[in-house]
This record gives sequence, C-alpha cells and structure tokens, in this order.
Amino acid sequence: MNLKDYITVVQDWPSEGIQFKDITTLMDNGKAFKYAVDQIVDYAKEKEIDIIVGPEARGFIIGCPVAYSMEVGFAPVRKEGKLPRETIKADYGLEYGKDVLTIHKDAIKPGQRVLITDDLLATGGTIEATIKLVEELGGIVVGCAFLVELTYLNGREKLEQYDLVALMQY
Amino acid sequence: MNLKDYITVVQDWPSEGIQFKDITTLMDNGKAFKYAVDQIVDYAKEKEIDIIVGPEARGFIIGCPVAYSMEVGFAPVRKEGKLPRETIKADYGLEYGKDVLTIHKDAIKPGQRVLITDDLLATGGTIEATIKLVEELGGIVVGCAFLVELTYLNGREKLEQYDLVALMQY
Repeated sequence: MNLKDYITVVQDWPSEGIQFKDITTLMDNGKAFKYAVDQIVDYAKEKEIDIIVGPEARGFIIGCPVAYSMEVGFAPVRKEGKLPRETIKADYGLEYGKDVLTIHKDAIKPGQRVLITDDLLATGGTIEATIKLVEELGGIVVGCAFLVELTYLNGREKLEQYDLVALMQY
Repeated sequence: MNLKDYITVVQDWPSEGIQFKDITTLMDNGKAFKYAVDQIVDYAKEKEIDIIVGPEARGFIIGCPVAYSMEVGFAPVRKEGKLPRETIKADYGLEYGKDVLTIHKDAIKPGQRVLITDDLLATGGTIEATIKLVEELGGIVVGCAFLVELTYLNGREKLEQYDLVALMQY
C-alpha cells in the first residue's frame, strides 16, 4: 500500500507558498489508517516500549491506536492549562514567539521506555519539547514515529541522537 | 475490571466546587486503556459502523483506537481554522459565549453509519454540535460512546433520540 496515495496536498494553506500535507483523507480510509498504525507498531515492537507519549491533538491520532495495539499506556502532552494535576513545562519556539507544552508529573516513571508519536515532523520544535518533558521525568526516549516528515525543514538534524521513523517523506 | 479504579477525581478543577474526572490515569495503564476501548468496540460491533467521528482533542483518544480496531475510518471534528480544506460549521454554547466546531465537507458520505466518540458526556453541547455536522453531511448517527457520563448535567436528555453508551457514570 502506498500511503502517499491517501494524503491530500493542499496548496497555500495555512499561508501562501505552503503545500500542506493533509492526513485526514488517510484517516478517513479504514484500511489505510490501520495499515499506517500497524507500520508504527512493527517499528515499536522491537523496542520494548513501556508507554507512548504524544503532543495534542494530532499526536493522539496515531499514538492512541499504537498504545491500544501494543497494550501499553498513553500519556498526553498538552498546552498549558489543559491537564488537571501537577505538571512540568517546556517551551517551544513558534514562527512568532513561543508556546508551552505540559505533561503530568506522574505520567512517566523513571526508567520507562518511551515511544513519542506525532503526525508530522517539520522543524522538530514540538518533538524537542516533548522529549525534554519525558527526559525530565526520567523516561528513556527509545524512538519517535511520524506519519509524515518534511525533510527540507531538517527536523531530523535537531533530533540526531534519537531513533526516528517516518512513514512518508516529502 | 472496574474502570473507575483508574479515574482520578481532582477536587476544585478547573474551578472551585468541580470534581474533575481525570481520565489520564486510565490511559496511562495499558490494560485499562485497552479494556475501555474494547468495551466501546463491543458496543459498536452490532451497529455496522462505516466511520467514527470525534471532537478534538479528547474525542481522538477513544475514537482513533476504536476505528483502528474495527478497521473503519476516523473523521476529526476540530475548532475553526484547524482543518485545511472546505468545511461546514456548527456553533455550540460555552459557559460564557459560544465556540465553533468544523468538519471537512467530504469527511462523511451521505448514508454512512456514524459512531460519535468523546471522553466525557457533560451538558451534551459538544456532542449536539458534532451530531449536527454529521447529519448536515447526510451521515446517520447510529451511536454515541463516552468513557464517562456526568448524569447530574443531564446531557442524555438533550440527546434522547440517539443511542448512547457511557462506560462510567458519576
């Protein structure tokens, strides 16, 4: 199955000159969605994962089915003010200014082996902040899995000491 | 398995007097998370579902693994400005003012049988807006599944012509 057949390239969104890779047409197809999740499960199987971590909202789309399939937990990383108990924080850069991601302080136990999931690897800023949160809690990031990698944004360089997989590259 | 054992009741969050039902401690446990998803899959199996729809972000947490398990698609409902192609909109009331939910115009085909998922049934406003979007696209809402129902908020009354299931009630 060629997963790229299910991605819609949207011209000039969210701003002129951007060719946005829309994954909703992949998710809309039950067979393609299952195939994509299973590819990431195959990647993760050898890594003895204890828990999966994904940033909201699109990190949940892949991470939750992978967690379900592997019968491991899923810990959400969310914007500030969304998680109800004690959290730790990490900043990440946006095009203009910065934003904050948080995780519950008890979401990861020291020494747990963590897979990080998100839909897209672009500049790597969100994933860098997510890794920082996991490591601050004593988790070991054993892999990062994405549906799509935008190779021209060089996110992979920023994360070179980590094991990464992306099912599609543009 | 008693799923309530995995829910953390957080006092006075997000505001005084609220006893927030935190599902992250359920998700953190691989066995409990799988058990909860499988309960919803069992509910959905008899309904010949074509596609699952869930509002961001917590509707993705349950809906995506159920879609994966049943090998059907998942269509996200998102806040305005988050979906890249042509959408339709529905308003929903908040405590102060209102907000807008959107879905891609091609996410549901007329006549498709739709299961709606979310983590929590409270007043039912979000789900009412989600149902409106699905029906405007010609989808048939054959069920709505939640992890938690806050029965004292009477969301079920607002949705009385629909089939609802909640795995836990408070």
